Amino acid sequence: MRRAVIAGVGLMGGSLGMALRRRGWRVVGLGRNAARLAKARRRGAIDEGHTDPARALAGADVVVLCAPVNRLAEQARRLKPFVPPAALVMDVGSVKGDVVRVLGRVFPAGGPAFVGAHPMTGSEKTGVENARPDLYQGAPCVVTPPPRSTPRDVARAESFWRSIGARVVRLSPKDHDRAVAVVSHLPHLLADALMLTAGRAGTKLLFRLAAGSFRDATRVAGADPVLWRAIFTRNDAAVRRALSDFQKALRGVSRGWPLSVLRRARALNDQFRKERP
Amino acid sequence: MRRAVIAGVGLMGGSLGMALRRRGWRVVGLGRNAARLAKARRRGAIDEGHTDPARALAGADVVVLCAPVNRLAEQARRLKPFVPPAALVMDVGSVKGDVVRVLGRVFPAGGPAFVGAHPMTGSEKTGVENARPDLYQGAPCVVTPPPRSTPRDVARAESFWRSIGARVVRLSPKDHDRAVAVVSHLPHLLADALMLTAGRAGTKLLFRLAAGSFRDATRVAGADPVLWRAIFTRNDAAVRRALSDFQKALRGVSRGWPLSVLRRARALNDQFRKERP
Repeated sequence: MRRAVIAGVGLMGGSLGMALRRRGWRVVGLGRNAARLAKARRRGAIDEGHTDPARALAGADVVVLCAPVNRLAEQARRLKPFVPPAALVMDVGSVKGDVVRVLGRVFPAGGPAFVGAHPMTGSEKTGVENARPDLYQGAPCVVTPPPRSTPRDVARAESFWRSIGARVVRLSPKDHDRAVAVVSHLPHLLADALMLTAGRAGTKLLFRLAAGSFRDATRVAGADPVLWRAIFTRNDAAVRRALSDFQKALRGVSRGWPLSVLRRARALNDQFRKERP
Repeated sequence: MRRAVIAGVGLMGGSLGMALRRRGWRVVGLGRNAARLAKARRRGAIDEGHTDPARALAGADVVVLCAPVNRLAEQARRLKPFVPPAALVMDVGSVKGDVVRVLGRVFPAGGPAFVGAHPMTGSEKTGVENARPDLYQGAPCVVTPPPRSTPRDVARAESFWRSIGARVVRLSPKDHDRAVAVVSHLPHLLADALMLTAGRAGTKLLFRLAAGSFRDATRVAGADPVLWRAIFTRNDAAVRRALSDFQKALRGVSRGWPLSVLRRARALNDQFRKERP
């Protein structure tokens, strides 16, 4: 039976465990908090849970590091001595340039293979209590191999994510970071800024009136501030670039509200909803 | 039996008709397109439909003008000669300063009373085919009386919207326009600009990767460009003011990604979701 070790059993790790167990994997949870591991086991996210890396990682075929991006390097260094040489190590961090560079150094050639991954499940929720077995079903998963990955490592990583229903997209870490800056980090930044705008004055009235568009546009302002500070900081250059493009687009609309520009936004929206119904 | 005339039977007018019919009103649809009126009747949105204003408006207790904001003035002027003097006239436009000024002149003291209204139902959908009887249930409805409205006119307008489940908020047209600039017009503008940013380069890849946050933040980019050009243009000053506040908030987040600011956005978000679950 193939053995997957999930280090960090929150929303993403827990959902991954549920999906893998349904596909015949033996799923081992690894964490520092025994109560949380017990909860993950009760939720059906893992078969067994350990706080001891040596016990958890013995015999692992795949190790998935699910710490937040600001704690991934520390997690990788701590677990490395216990990872079997034939295992494939992956992370699920939302920034890849910084992460793949650091983790590529923690796992150099000759030991366990490392391939970066970013399953884009798009939820502001956290915790194993929100985990669900179909979280990855149909979700894009970007696979970002370090420069010296072997084709076999990459194929293993990609078939792993495909097996749980993700739509795999292979990108360089840099291309990944530029793309997610536009489709994920920028919307988060706008959500925060929009919520802060409503918080400047007349908040009580504004909250009473706010309906669909405000609600949708601010949903992800509920995401974890510590995690998002880490994401923004680690992807600073790409986010600034996306923000600069956004400002150009904003001026294009607000300078006289030209119908042609509003029509182009609508046409793009139609195209998007058609491709991603 | 109380008689309501709905001039323009699209999403908002059609849903209003459905809601009123369930509460015992006789609902009359008025429009220029007989086929559309027949469709509204088949959908259960109206009891009868007329293209002739004289026939439709005879005996009306309430007249609700449901033309888009850029066609409201013309609609009001065209129908005015046929509105019974005791009737209450309301509109449902998303901008109130401009609309209440113009329609207040069309319906001066001594004739039918006019009170502005803006039920905030928050949908990018249009047409009677999307109408539903509970569209107004729980939705905020801003009532904006012109300066010389009588308390009785205002009470009639407010009890009308309350009777179909809307949460009435009374505001001056100016306060309304400033508030909706933040909670509605700004999110629409951001949705358009975000979609245009994704349309600048790498659109195909970006659309493949875009998940929850992009999808939610751009939903209203699908709204009607002609209508939104009219809304932005008529509420230009308040939208620019909201945009300027938004730019300040954006700088507050993006200058060093301070944790305290990200935490404030999250706290506001928690407060909003608690007040408007």
